[in-house]
Amino acid sequence: MFHVEHGGNMFKRYDVIVVGAGHAGCEAAAAAANMGSSVLLITMNMNTIAQMSCNPAMGGVAKGQIVREIDAMGGYSGIITDKTSIQFRMLNLSKGPAMWSPRAQSDRMRFAEEWRLALENTPNVDFWQDMVSSLLVKGNTVYGVRTSIGVEIEAKSVVLTNGTFLNGIIHIGEKRFGGGRTGEKSATGLTEQLTELGFEAGRMKTGTPPRVDGRSLNYSLMEEQWGDEERGRFSYTDVKQIQEQRCCWITYTNVDVHETLKEGFEKSPMFTGRIKGLGPRYCPSIEDKINRFAERERHQIFVEPEGLNTVEIYVNGFSTSLPEDVQYKALTKIQGFENAKMFRPGYAIEYDYFPPTQLNLTLETKLISNLFFAGQINGTTGYEEAASQGFIAGINAHQKVHDRHELIMKRSESYIGVLIDDLVTKGTEEPYRMFTSRAEHRLLLRQDNADIRLSPIGHELGLISDERLQKVNDKIRNSDNIVAYTKSKSIEPSRVNNLLDELGTAPLSQNTKIFNLISRPQVSINDLRDTDAALNELLSAYDKETIEQAEIKIKYESYFEKELDIVSRMKKMEDKEINPDFNYHQLVSVSKEAREKLMKIRPRTLGQASRISGVSPSDISVLMVHITK
Amino acid sequence: MFHVEHGGNMFKRYDVIVVGAGHAGCEAAAAAANMGSSVLLITMNMNTIAQMSCNPAMGGVAKGQIVREIDAMGGYSGIITDKTSIQFRMLNLSKGPAMWSPRAQSDRMRFAEEWRLALENTPNVDFWQDMVSSLLVKGNTVYGVRTSIGVEIEAKSVVLTNGTFLNGIIHIGEKRFGGGRTGEKSATGLTEQLTELGFEAGRMKTGTPPRVDGRSLNYSLMEEQWGDEERGRFSYTDVKQIQEQRCCWITYTNVDVHETLKEGFEKSPMFTGRIKGLGPRYCPSIEDKINRFAERERHQIFVEPEGLNTVEIYVNGFSTSLPEDVQYKALTKIQGFENAKMFRPGYAIEYDYFPPTQLNLTLETKLISNLFFAGQINGTTGYEEAASQGFIAGINAHQKVHDRHELIMKRSESYIGVLIDDLVTKGTEEPYRMFTSRAEHRLLLRQDNADIRLSPIGHELGLISDERLQKVNDKIRNSDNIVAYTKSKSIEPSRVNNLLDELGTAPLSQNTKIFNLISRPQVSINDLRDTDAALNELLSAYDKETIEQAEIKIKYESYFEKELDIVSRMKKMEDKEINPDFNYHQLVSVSKEAREKLMKIRPRTLGQASRISGVSPSDISVLMVHITK
Repeated sequence: MFHVEHGGNMFKRYDVIVVGAGHAGCEAAAAAANMGSSVLLITMNMNTIAQMSCNPAMGGVAKGQIVREIDAMGGYSGIITDKTSIQFRMLNLSKGPAMWSPRAQSDRMRFAEEWRLALENTPNVDFWQDMVSSLLVKGNTVYGVRTSIGVEIEAKSVVLTNGTFLNGIIHIGEKRFGGGRTGEKSATGLTEQLTELGFEAGRMKTGTPPRVDGRSLNYSLMEEQWGDEERGRFSYTDVKQIQEQRCCWITYTNVDVHETLKEGFEKSPMFTGRIKGLGPRYCPSIEDKINRFAERERHQIFVEPEGLNTVEIYVNGFSTSLPEDVQYKALTKIQGFENAKMFRPGYAIEYDYFPPTQLNLTLETKLISNLFFAGQINGTTGYEEAASQGFIAGINAHQKVHDRHELIMKRSESYIGVLIDDLVTKGTEEPYRMFTSRAEHRLLLRQDNADIRLSPIGHELGLISDERLQKVNDKIRNSDNIVAYTKSKSIEPSRVNNLLDELGTAPLSQNTKIFNLISRPQVSINDLRDTDAALNELLSAYDKETIEQAEIKIKYESYFEKELDIVSRMKKMEDKEINPDFNYHQLVSVSKEAREKLMKIRPRTLGQASRISGVSPSDISVLMVHITK
Repeated sequence: MFHVEHGGNMFKRYDVIVVGAGHAGCEAAAAAANMGSSVLLITMNMNTIAQMSCNPAMGGVAKGQIVREIDAMGGYSGIITDKTSIQFRMLNLSKGPAMWSPRAQSDRMRFAEEWRLALENTPNVDFWQDMVSSLLVKGNTVYGVRTSIGVEIEAKSVVLTNGTFLNGIIHIGEKRFGGGRTGEKSATGLTEQLTELGFEAGRMKTGTPPRVDGRSLNYSLMEEQWGDEERGRFSYTDVKQIQEQRCCWITYTNVDVHETLKEGFEKSPMFTGRIKGLGPRYCPSIEDKINRFAERERHQIFVEPEGLNTVEIYVNGFSTSLPEDVQYKALTKIQGFENAKMFRPGYAIEYDYFPPTQLNLTLETKLISNLFFAGQINGTTGYEEAASQGFIAGINAHQKVHDRHELIMKRSESYIGVLIDDLVTKGTEEPYRMFTSRAEHRLLLRQDNADIRLSPIGHELGLISDERLQKVNDKIRNSDNIVAYTKSKSIEPSRVNNLLDELGTAPLSQNTKIFNLISRPQVSINDLRDTDAALNELLSAYDKETIEQAEIKIKYESYFEKELDIVSRMKKMEDKEINPDFNYHQLVSVSKEAREKLMKIRPRTLGQASRISGVSPSDISVLMVHITK
């Protein structure tokens, strides 16, 4: 058991080195290690592993689906969130199931601690506290890293997940200082080396709101927002959850708040041009919102606890880099914040990213073999986006160094596939955030069926146990049983018309299939339990998720079928592979712009080629002719 | 309830600003706030409040007594330690009770979290995350601080507890970089300003060992070290403790380890002169130990878990700043460490301190009114030393700004008094650590009677409740009852001789007072319960601590009386106050050196004057004549 593994050297040669231990880095390390790679996770500070740098919450619209997808494939984000959540809500329940989106507040300290303990309990993960200052590269292949204390550590592959740390500069009003997060050092050296190696780098910007002392707020002037009574969860596994739950609150800015904030605009790094990087459009600072939506008299503020016991409060919706005194003055004009005390001001942070068109769909860089990028370094924003990239990069790093097949997620099977395909194919010039609208097949990419969609992939990779896969297959089979029964069994008007009347839907005039009744928006499958003993007995044998799955299938079957039909018609293009060395310059009838873009992106399939901006349908026709020749 | 407290300013004017949130800063903030001061605690990072930067343990010889003293007066260190301890041992139980010293391993993450939550639950404590870059001073009085983001915050008093952060430089072999702890920024600006204000500054050095991965150790080759079966506690209050306990291990260095370490000596910052500050003599680095004790073939290594669940291990006894590859190579030659994986290397850190002779016994600086220093900034080492200074500084800052009397702890009543008197009177040129030998009245300064000694002081200050004081008074009265009974009651030889034989002590030949029996080293009070029903009944009415207190009084009464006699004879000198403006230069018959030292220290009492190095007994006689004139 205690044999010497690395012959007296301080470090053995690792399969995978992961640089950075945020959401991306943690998922990357866990995935590669769980698949059997020896992994070294390098972080600048072992006490800040898996810090939630911004809001203490996971999930939300489209993002919640991503967490479910990570979980379905054997990642940890869902499990950690469930273990540490202090409020859970399924958003958009009034809309169709494709819009249902789980979201949870987590206890910030617990979240970080549980991630760290989870990684420590992953046998193949080693840790090293240090700053990576450069990569070891020979030819066009990475073979390790060099750190700030001068250690060289070799590895077959490297995953960079540097977040906002690369040459990070923090702005508060006219002040600015280096830092990766407030109170933490930035990381230097890597960007410069990557640029020399031929990478294109850019600057992005993000921000965070002030944190305030919950003891100084007047909650009686705000609206309470409790979690769901029937508490959901992210993970498809059974995780022990914190029992106690916490309330959030909602309040609003007002004209007075806006006027106060405007007083600081002349010192705003956003408006004076000091900040050059673009910020996240859909997670704008409060000054941005006031500026862009001048007609709006108020904006919503979510008042979110940072944990079960701490009094620290996250002021969601009030991200700002205005001078701290302006932040404070404006805050105190918000209803309920009259006596607010700040713990720390909001700030903006500028950092380096690398336009993700420089990546393959595996998240390996095109320029340097065995080097993977994941998270904000690719120009994304959001914990979930970062985590999913880390997860895929970790998997592909493992696969690559073990000469196994690549994992490329399809747009038709996951939000993760949409995310990566968007990044790699279209690039991004502002922090990329996931939305349901980005997924053309979103009807299929639901939070309820992430396990059905993706667990087989996780199982094939060795990240999902036989037992877990069996459970998914049971869910499929059992929900199909329910659907089949509802299609087979008719119900008499007399047994059901009173109920239908109660539910506000038209009575039956003749025997009708249970399936057709459930198809009505007003009727749920459980409503009918009393009207059909066999249905009741059948449902009693299955768990909530299985019944819900059946009901969703029944209610939306026709839509899903249409969507699947589209997917299958597009499959031909999506499956049509293009030789990575294909010389697009030979396509003289294709526009110069399209040829250049195609040369740069080097799409993997005809489908991917068709999504490159500047490449027209006629260009694709030409290309198709050439590659089928 | 929600009135505006500070008239639209971002910060109200505080009674006390505490800079730094380590052991000293946390105790200072809690004490001042609990006494009624409005307190602002400023920390560079709210996520690292109360970090245990070095070993994850509190207490030990003399240090454990300090924690008990803090607790007896209403500080938090004992409570937080009890809440988070994962192993407790009473050291030196085989010696006399003056040597008994509680020591606990704590869960590092829990310790920090519980401190933070305790402070958050202290209503008068506000928080601000920022770096203090200078003091606001008018004339010779401090009135606030300025921070790195340019905020000015006013306060009636300021307590500086900057730890190792002031111009901190970290050394590992020949590499060095700025930092207050590894992975954290150093603090700049304050030293320069204080020097300009006339303060003398110096450099000190301390160090920390590597942390290793517990999964890589072979514990079967080490000695187990479990905590006490009957688990003790630091706090005199009833704290809910973690039930589960963890084992530590003991192993040893060997000649091979030493030879390996010596290979790095030429790159050691200690030996090449790169580090100029002096390190803690009694907590030396492993290279120091090898160098100074060349004849020793091995040194003990305590292998200590960093928490209940984490696999991180603290290698106690192996503090080093040798190059990381030398650290690693030497580590792997320690029995049980053959396959050790490091998480982070050990390092040395140099930082600024201010010779504490520049302070009054209240810990207020002599140069700047209302400015207090506590912790490593005063040249001490150790969590407990820091915590106790913070506690006293916090109390005195409160007392000062409320025009209340100073708190000066006496050497005869507490280790804290010894600590502060030593610092202020003698100064220190190397990190000062507490030992029982530093206390001339150590027989009286025991861990078992800290409550009896000090709770009245805490109560008078408002930090100890009436109820808690009542409990202490009950303990005194009840233990006196027990002593009185043992003095009053004799026991017949026939009832006890069998027992005495069993216990290995001489039989009685005549009736003997129970008191005299208990005075024998072999006999404990509980041994005699079966021999005297009334004694048994009496003891049954009291708790363990009361009985223990009685037994200690019985066994050591004569020693204590002698010691108390010495204290009372010295009291005259200790109580003889000297006018702070006394001009020592007029004492022409006193040596020039002594006069200069007296002018510098400005002792408060004749007793303090007598302890100044370079001041002889004859100088004191001359001084006594003058001040009694």
